[in-house]
Amino acid sequence: MTSPSKILATCRVALADRSYDVRIGQGLLGDAASYFDLPRSRQALIVTNTTVGPLYGAALKAALAGRHDTLHYLELPDGEAYKTSETLGLIYDALLRPACDRKTLIYALGGGVVGDVAGYAAATYMRGVPFVQIPTTLLAQVDSSVGGKTAINHPLGKNMIGAFYQPLRVLCDLDALKTLAPRELSAGLAEVIKYGPIADMAFLAWLEEHMDALVARDPAALAYAVERSCAIKADVVGQDERESALRAILNFGHTFGHAIEAGLGYGQWLHGEAVGCGMIMAAHLSQRLGLIDAGLVDRLTRLCQRAGLPVTLSPALGLTPERMVELMQVDKKTEAGRLNFVLVDGHKARVQAVDADPVLDVIRTCQAQAA
Amino acid sequence: MTSPSKILATCRVALADRSYDVRIGQGLLGDAASYFDLPRSRQALIVTNTTVGPLYGAALKAALAGRHDTLHYLELPDGEAYKTSETLGLIYDALLRPACDRKTLIYALGGGVVGDVAGYAAATYMRGVPFVQIPTTLLAQVDSSVGGKTAINHPLGKNMIGAFYQPLRVLCDLDALKTLAPRELSAGLAEVIKYGPIADMAFLAWLEEHMDALVARDPAALAYAVERSCAIKADVVGQDERESALRAILNFGHTFGHAIEAGLGYGQWLHGEAVGCGMIMAAHLSQRLGLIDAGLVDRLTRLCQRAGLPVTLSPALGLTPERMVELMQVDKKTEAGRLNFVLVDGHKARVQAVDADPVLDVIRTCQAQAA
Ligand SMILES: NC(=O)c1ccc[n+]([C@@H]2O[C@H](COP(=O)([O-])OP(=O)(O)OC[C@H]3O[C@@H](n4cnc5c(N)ncnc54)[C@H](O)[C@@H]3O)[C@@H](O)[C@H]2O)c1
Ligand SMILES: NC(=O)c1ccc[n+]([C@@H]2O[C@H](COP(=O)([O-])OP(=O)(O)OC[C@H]3O[C@@H](n4cnc5c(N)ncnc54)[C@H](O)[C@@H]3O)[C@@H](O)[C@H]2O)c1
Ligand SMILES: [Zn+2]
Ligand SMILES: [Zn+2]
Repeated sequence: MTSPSKILATCRVALADRSYDVRIGQGLLGDAASYFDLPRSRQALIVTNTTVGPLYGAALKAALAGRHDTLHYLELPDGEAYKTSETLGLIYDALLRPACDRKTLIYALGGGVVGDVAGYAAATYMRGVPFVQIPTTLLAQVDSSVGGKTAINHPLGKNMIGAFYQPLRVLCDLDALKTLAPRELSAGLAEVIKYGPIADMAFLAWLEEHMDALVARDPAALAYAVERSCAIKADVVGQDERESALRAILNFGHTFGHAIEAGLGYGQWLHGEAVGCGMIMAAHLSQRLGLIDAGLVDRLTRLCQRAGLPVTLSPALGLTPERMVELMQVDKKTEAGRLNFVLVDGHKARVQAVDADPVLDVIRTCQAQAA
Repeated sequence: MTSPSKILATCRVALADRSYDVRIGQGLLGDAASYFDLPRSRQALIVTNTTVGPLYGAALKAALAGRHDTLHYLELPDGEAYKTSETLGLIYDALLRPACDRKTLIYALGGGVVGDVAGYAAATYMRGVPFVQIPTTLLAQVDSSVGGKTAINHPLGKNMIGAFYQPLRVLCDLDALKTLAPRELSAGLAEVIKYGPIADMAFLAWLEEHMDALVARDPAALAYAVERSCAIKADVVGQDERESALRAILNFGHTFGHAIEAGLGYGQWLHGEAVGCGMIMAAHLSQRLGLIDAGLVDRLTRLCQRAGLPVTLSPALGLTPERMVELMQVDKKTEAGRLNFVLVDGHKARVQAVDADPVLDVIRTCQAQAA
């Protein structure tokens, strides 16, 4: 009962004995061929949520029919609010009640929340069981499913508990993106756009040419955008798996973005929306420090607008520049006194400590443009 | 305020970029020199428990004076019953409330329980912070602090949630063993004896010569026993960090031992006591399968007796051979139908699947000898 699939691209994440492929294509999740060479453990567990499960759970189960003696299935509640130790406990229970052993394969089917929490469960169940990422949001396909960061939230902070733990494979099925809400697609596009200024200006130009096709979910355009994004991320992660330095450039726009998310209250703006606006602020900051000219700031701004992302922070939202800087100071990426930002120079990115003053200025500018 | 220390031996655990030293000696934990070349993070946290903290916490704090801007201190409740996610939450809170960052160094001061839970917290706080093992029981010095296994228990099973995560250093301070309860010393000796039959028969002969000195806590004898134990464990772990195969030989006596622990109810016998008796059963099983002769079984039995360990399982305790086999079948080390055991042949160890019948026989023999 599986449909034929098309692999449109493959990216290798090169990490010695933890290397794996990201396969990008159509019909992948429902095709038995996608799983053919993965371990056939006695037991296996599909972890998904109450939104994605009803949409794609049956296709995945059909594709896996006969591979495992027992295939367990768990639907988590949907939402970032459930990326918690309680939800993690649901996964452990689903593994322990049927006495799943250390070879049990976990399939994470869903967006970044499912991928992060199921990946963390895989990292820690019996000190690690193998798992496969099947990301179903654009953000998860271009970012969270690749690179092995897994985590849950703690009441005192997002992603505070986690592990670096690589999957055996990532299957990016572009067909799954058809059912994604438009805001979620835009949020994913923010992380796609990010890869241009930090690593590949030619990709930025390509995005300018194909943004309308991407918003219209044209499979060929999506395939290329996912491929380039994963290739850039794989390259960075291959050089710095545990974020000792280089990997931090993937957080372009995120210092501002996290402060926006926290300041507006989690759930007001999507992560990708906050990152979109945060990238514009980070671009302004790069310009203010003489690294790029206004032309590049404008290009990024227009591109984010066309992707359906907010590019200004209306003062009416009640988040002051001072409060944002305060929030940045409690964020993990700050060092005593000065704040660390990913800045771009028109070719590549760097992490740099910056005083509060230019940061406040830049936020004020973005607020003035909204007013 | 630190006393001069003596390093009596050092073992290297060779694991590429995760390599580290196990230092064995006297006065180590209270000597600033033991920490001299470790990272001086802004914040640090000592994790200990309510028994070990009052005994050695002050000496550790004095040795660390001035190394970190802030040195936090956390005493966990004492006991295996607290090796839980709730206790883990106490450590996360102690790290998150003062906003400890990803460079925060954790010092685990205590027996295997403190080392396992603090090590697991280190493995997962912000996807991993550095930590140092300062084991204060013999069992922790010769076994649990070396090799990077960390874990907590789950209501449905022991050590079910965990990670492979190596410390930066292990400091085995033999002076700390002076305050150890006699039963705890014996339990540690079980894991010491284990290394003989699985890897080094000359060490077994040495143990036969020096068992009285060990029970009397002679520092020179303890130093050699800890050194050989750590060297053998380091060698095995260096070849098979994640227990894909070889590392399993370290579980000699443990399939029987776990069934004894579970069958009598956790807390009745100490882990090391159950392992001691389990080793005798595993030796009987090796003999029954023609791998060793009765002489070696007798030698092991006498050695365990002199170490103060139980070598028979009295039927009066109410644990039947059938129940034990049942418990082994739900244990993680079993495969459908047959049971996996570590067997010895008088030179080295191997893992082998065995039918239930000889296993039942062997348990009956050990019960008959007790009656
Ligand atoms: N691990 C990493 O490296 C990394 C990187 C970036 C973000 N993240 C994490 O990812 C999470 C955000 O991921 P996300 O944006 O995918 O959010 P998400 O997982 O919450 O998914 C967004 C929404 O879309 C729904 N959905 C998913 N797939 C769908 C589909 N095909 N059709 C219809 N609806 C679908 C989900 O149920 C959810 O309601 C955050 O928790 C963030 O911390 C992790
Ligand atoms: N990680 C591994 O590879 C590994 C290997 C073997 C065992 N373990 C784990 O180790 C744990 C058992 O360790 P343990 O035997 O050290 O038990 P433990 O940590 O409970 O210590 C035993 C008792 O001795 C006390 N104590 C510790 N040091 C003392 C000292 N110097 N003076 C006086 N009292 C002291 C403790 O407070 C406790 O009451 C189990 O949870 C087991 O699962 C782990
Ligand atoms: Zn992001
Ligand atoms: Zn043991």
